[in-house]
Amino acid sequence: MALIVQKFGGTSVGNTDRIKNVARRVAAYRTKGDQLVVVVSAMSGVTDGLIKLSREITSLPSEREMDMLLATGEQQTIALTAIALHAQGIPAVSLTGAQAGIVTDGVHTKAKIQNITPNEVHKFLNDGNVVIVAGFQGQTPEGHITTLGRGGSDLTAIALAAALKADLCQIYTDVDGVYTADPRIVPNARKLDEVAYDEMLELAGAGAKVMQLRSVEFAKKFGVVFEVRSSMNDNPGTIVKEETKSMEGVVVRGVSLDKNQAKVTLVGVPDKPGVAARVFNALADGAINVDMIVQNVSHGSGTPATDLSFTVDKPDLLKATKVIEGLKGEIGYREVSADENIGKLSIVGVGMRSHSGVAAKMFATLATEGVNIDMISTSEIKISVVIDLAKGEHAMRAVHAAFIA
Amino acid sequence: MALIVQKFGGTSVGNTDRIKNVARRVAAYRTKGDQLVVVVSAMSGVTDGLIKLSREITSLPSEREMDMLLATGEQQTIALTAIALHAQGIPAVSLTGAQAGIVTDGVHTKAKIQNITPNEVHKFLNDGNVVIVAGFQGQTPEGHITTLGRGGSDLTAIALAAALKADLCQIYTDVDGVYTADPRIVPNARKLDEVAYDEMLELAGAGAKVMQLRSVEFAKKFGVVFEVRSSMNDNPGTIVKEETKSMEGVVVRGVSLDKNQAKVTLVGVPDKPGVAARVFNALADGAINVDMIVQNVSHGSGTPATDLSFTVDKPDLLKATKVIEGLKGEIGYREVSADENIGKLSIVGVGMRSHSGVAAKMFATLATEGVNIDMISTSEIKISVVIDLAKGEHAMRAVHAAFIA
Repeated sequence: MALIVQKFGGTSVGNTDRIKNVARRVAAYRTKGDQLVVVVSAMSGVTDGLIKLSREITSLPSEREMDMLLATGEQQTIALTAIALHAQGIPAVSLTGAQAGIVTDGVHTKAKIQNITPNEVHKFLNDGNVVIVAGFQGQTPEGHITTLGRGGSDLTAIALAAALKADLCQIYTDVDGVYTADPRIVPNARKLDEVAYDEMLELAGAGAKVMQLRSVEFAKKFGVVFEVRSSMNDNPGTIVKEETKSMEGVVVRGVSLDKNQAKVTLVGVPDKPGVAARVFNALADGAINVDMIVQNVSHGSGTPATDLSFTVDKPDLLKATKVIEGLKGEIGYREVSADENIGKLSIVGVGMRSHSGVAAKMFATLATEGVNIDMISTSEIKISVVIDLAKGEHAMRAVHAAFIA
Repeated sequence: MALIVQKFGGTSVGNTDRIKNVARRVAAYRTKGDQLVVVVSAMSGVTDGLIKLSREITSLPSEREMDMLLATGEQQTIALTAIALHAQGIPAVSLTGAQAGIVTDGVHTKAKIQNITPNEVHKFLNDGNVVIVAGFQGQTPEGHITTLGRGGSDLTAIALAAALKADLCQIYTDVDGVYTADPRIVPNARKLDEVAYDEMLELAGAGAKVMQLRSVEFAKKFGVVFEVRSSMNDNPGTIVKEETKSMEGVVVRGVSLDKNQAKVTLVGVPDKPGVAARVFNALADGAINVDMIVQNVSHGSGTPATDLSFTVDKPDLLKATKVIEGLKGEIGYREVSADENIGKLSIVGVGMRSHSGVAAKMFATLATEGVNIDMISTSEIKISVVIDLAKGEHAMRAVHAAFIA
């Protein structure tokens, strides 16, 4: 008898028929004798509908009250899921995040889990119930309802799996698992049987949107092995776990293409200490997330000057250029340019640590395809390049072919 | 500075514009310096929508899970109401029933309030907030979410007013107050300035649907003075309170007509002990609520036999006649008849205690109008008669004219 935590997202519980499907899947595991904790999100559309109601009142609702409002979405799903399990003869009890003992800090709309005291979960499991827990939510030590922000239901599932010392945590989603590349772009991409936490983190950071970074980070921190799999079929998914010796045999686990970045370049920045610090402090103060940073020495005549480039999320581009323009008098750069037509192509794999020549092979592949490299950034297990957006998908297929298949 | 509990029903918070109206009204009181606790129901339609979802899964959902599901309706309204108050610059905090310290027994879908420990309410009031509390809900001592059944939000308001020792409890509804009769039937019916708990109870029991019986009973038990008034205008409403000496000067406070009853008659019941007990035990076992009961000696020939008549709610009529038919062999009555075309006309007033001839005057009035009386039932402060449904409204106007105006 295994203890399994299963998480179903908003699409998987999007209407009562889908909730019945989820109940059938849960019932099948239960009938085999497993103990089950099921984490569900709000039915797709419900959260957006509630946000719309709040916006009809004001554009700046209180974050505490938004948590009070949005937490009802998951609460509705847990009740309906328990009802659907009962209809299949399976004993089940629903618990809100608060009832399940999920205690968070008080940062409403993006609270962090502080600890989990799953006494009620254990009690109802021991009485033979499937326990349905509302994802995305918890309460502060003072009893205020909080929500965990984007990807919060995944986090609930993984944190519960850690607290319950579950044998397995399954994240059900609308894809079959983690792929070597997005199959919509790379037709011969294939599903991975397993992937290391660090690879998953780099892939997510590089724009592969299977899960939010924070859930993977949490899983890595607490050593929670989890499986990403589809709620639409019974195919085995991808196991995400600590890196093993055998994983190093594969140089490149996956290829990703992030089309959601834009590049800002400060041309002719005076080459003196403190300039970069000033630029990125100002961007941080504006809550603008910077991804890649590259600085090149500029070999022009006159006083030494460099070009400084960085990438930001596309929606932040306007804000970022305004921040930079505000610094012009202080820093004295020559001009600022912005480019939305870029793509960030990344290869990821723990095997890179023990294999040399990976970057060279990637660059050579791109050269052969006539793709110019604009920026380069590397980590221990990832190489990213910024290229022309128009050539992004073609470049992705070429790199995938060179390293994977 | 007064402490006021205000309750707004589902129609008063039926959309975001109405919620903004409620917030404006609350803000006006708050600006005058009063402390406010606001109890709200689910937005009209929300509860029905949730019930419909559950019915898509099964016709017999678990009552615990229905409470978990339906409690979200009020939780949404409290958050939106707090947001609307913030938008008007009024500090406000929402609390679920559980957070407000409302503890109930474990009878899901119709839980009874056991006690209220409003520590959080006091805390937030003392910090200068308007406190918005979800009506209709509480939690068991073990932490399960419960709902209070029909009229539950009124009960929340009145119970909170008692626990907080509020100066005033206002029940906002879609009528201006309690009337001497339904103004849709009796055009010259007038709004009462005040009414005694017992009168309000008898009027509600007689089909005047301003409030559920249990909320009035609770108010009477704990001496909570409350006002029924409209959320659509600023007219003063009706104060409901303990009977005063001056109230006895009015013989008849109100007239009501209940069109929702049906009559069952057992003809030729053998006149022997235990028969009535057998009949009404069987009906009680079938969870059928019986209102009026009349037994007449039948002067036919042969063995002594009586006719036994009683009234039930119309939707229970079929069930009731089936129960009675099941007793035929055991009891040996001659036949059973059912009549849906009846109305129960009642006059109510604490002044009846000290005035004689009230019943005679009512019967004379009906006789003058050619209305035949089918059954009669009296209490200390109420006289009810069952008459032909077709003549009900006409009879009501005549009785109202004879006693009130």
